[in-house]
Amino acid sequence: MPRYAIKVQYDGTPYVGYQVQPNGPSVQAAIEKALCKMAKLPSGQHIPTSGSGRTDSGVHALGQVVHFDYPASIHPKAMQRAFNSLLDTSIRVIDVAQVAETFHARYDVAEKEYIYRVDVGQFPDPFKRHYTLHHPYRYDLAKMQRAICDIVGTHDFTSFCSTKTDKEDKVRTVYEATIMYDEEQHELRFYFRGNGFLYNMIRILVGTLLQIGDGLRPETELQRLLAVRNRKQAGPTAPPQGLYMQRVIYEQDPFNQ
Amino acid sequence: MPRYAIKVQYDGTPYVGYQVQPNGPSVQAAIEKALCKMAKLPSGQHIPTSGSGRTDSGVHALGQVVHFDYPASIHPKAMQRAFNSLLDTSIRVIDVAQVAETFHARYDVAEKEYIYRVDVGQFPDPFKRHYTLHHPYRYDLAKMQRAICDIVGTHDFTSFCSTKTDKEDKVRTVYEATIMYDEEQHELRFYFRGNGFLYNMIRILVGTLLQIGDGLRPETELQRLLAVRNRKQAGPTAPPQGLYMQRVIYEQDPFNQ
Repeated sequence: MPRYAIKVQYDGTPYVGYQVQPNGPSVQAAIEKALCKMAKLPSGQHIPTSGSGRTDSGVHALGQVVHFDYPASIHPKAMQRAFNSLLDTSIRVIDVAQVAETFHARYDVAEKEYIYRVDVGQFPDPFKRHYTLHHPYRYDLAKMQRAICDIVGTHDFTSFCSTKTDKEDKVRTVYEATIMYDEEQHELRFYFRGNGFLYNMIRILVGTLLQIGDGLRPETELQRLLAVRNRKQAGPTAPPQGLYMQRVIYEQDPFNQ
Repeated sequence: MPRYAIKVQYDGTPYVGYQVQPNGPSVQAAIEKALCKMAKLPSGQHIPTSGSGRTDSGVHALGQVVHFDYPASIHPKAMQRAFNSLLDTSIRVIDVAQVAETFHARYDVAEKEYIYRVDVGQFPDPFKRHYTLHHPYRYDLAKMQRAICDIVGTHDFTSFCSTKTDKEDKVRTVYEATIMYDEEQHELRFYFRGNGFLYNMIRILVGTLLQIGDGLRPETELQRLLAVRNRKQAGPTAPPQGLYMQRVIYEQDPFNQ
């Protein structure tokens, strides 16, 4: 059976998260339901899919990648149209490609990019309440910008990982980590690119960085937290609605071959 | 009792509309509930409010204006903070002013501005599904831009008014009407400024203009429709989620005195 990769955007607001779960609608279940209809499978049959990684309830994606084996050969453009007519408008397939049978959306990930958006207006923008964290406090941007540099490189990120994780190895490499202020939008944007991120890692980093910016922790705090390897000493987990899985990068781009 | 005017933004998605209605939550009811709490009124008592005009279910506001008489004198900044801590984050008070006892949010309106946003991407943007109309068809922007000029001036807009209206006088003056394309956002933005707009007027104008852009009607169609004064001959009412009450203009700006 030919293997396909799809690039997916979604508004995570109405979902319990990316992965199928018993307690509510998931993005993965919506995609698999659309696939079943597309392939006209008899009821009970199902096409399994693999995403590049999970996203939690309320977390968004601008470029999630998912692969699956499909029982027929379809032109990628036709498959994209079929997906977008079958899926709810909270999910959109923005690219489809037929890929090598060895391609794996999760195992083959080289790098991932995430952004985290913070609404720093005095009162929360009603149009951003599902798409940003509202943080109206006075903050020192330059201090946060200096602090965030400490996580670039290869480190043990135990302090920035939910204790609910099942991963043993907490060492990850962050290639880029920046914070910019968008004056027009009254928004802070945190940007992270790395070879992988632990469970809640970006949300804990953002929660801790905001405390540094607010003056509640010293500028050198991330160095200390990397060394102590203790989740309890880091800041709070920032809420899900500010987080976006922006891009998944593979050694060979499956959508541009 | 001192009279106050407030400027309000809201995401219309969760509401049955601006005005209090028996069948669901309204923006006005939310504002009046917040006012009751703020004034610590005994139950059963209530502070009536007047908005500059209604918005339908799903229609948004960037600058709705509302006035009311409040039983005490409060500093406008304190009242703004109180509103924003009492209101749901789908509604935000962006300005408060104490105004003359003769000021009326509806009767005193000199002009109003509305915008209508259209997502013209091939597939609907999941983050804009509650905030734009998705219209993925080929369209002729220049033709729409020429056509829209015909409504500028004083005209009888009967063809562009819902038959459900209770207004007898259908003559209104449009001062400005333009369409621009935002390439980065893949959006068409319709802008209207006039001395008043009839029920569904902008949504019917947008529905008709899109048909002109799509080649379904001639470029001179708006002239003809103004002349025939018949709602049935105009295009469909564009859906509510693309519409924003952008600004209400008074002879004397109540927020800048």
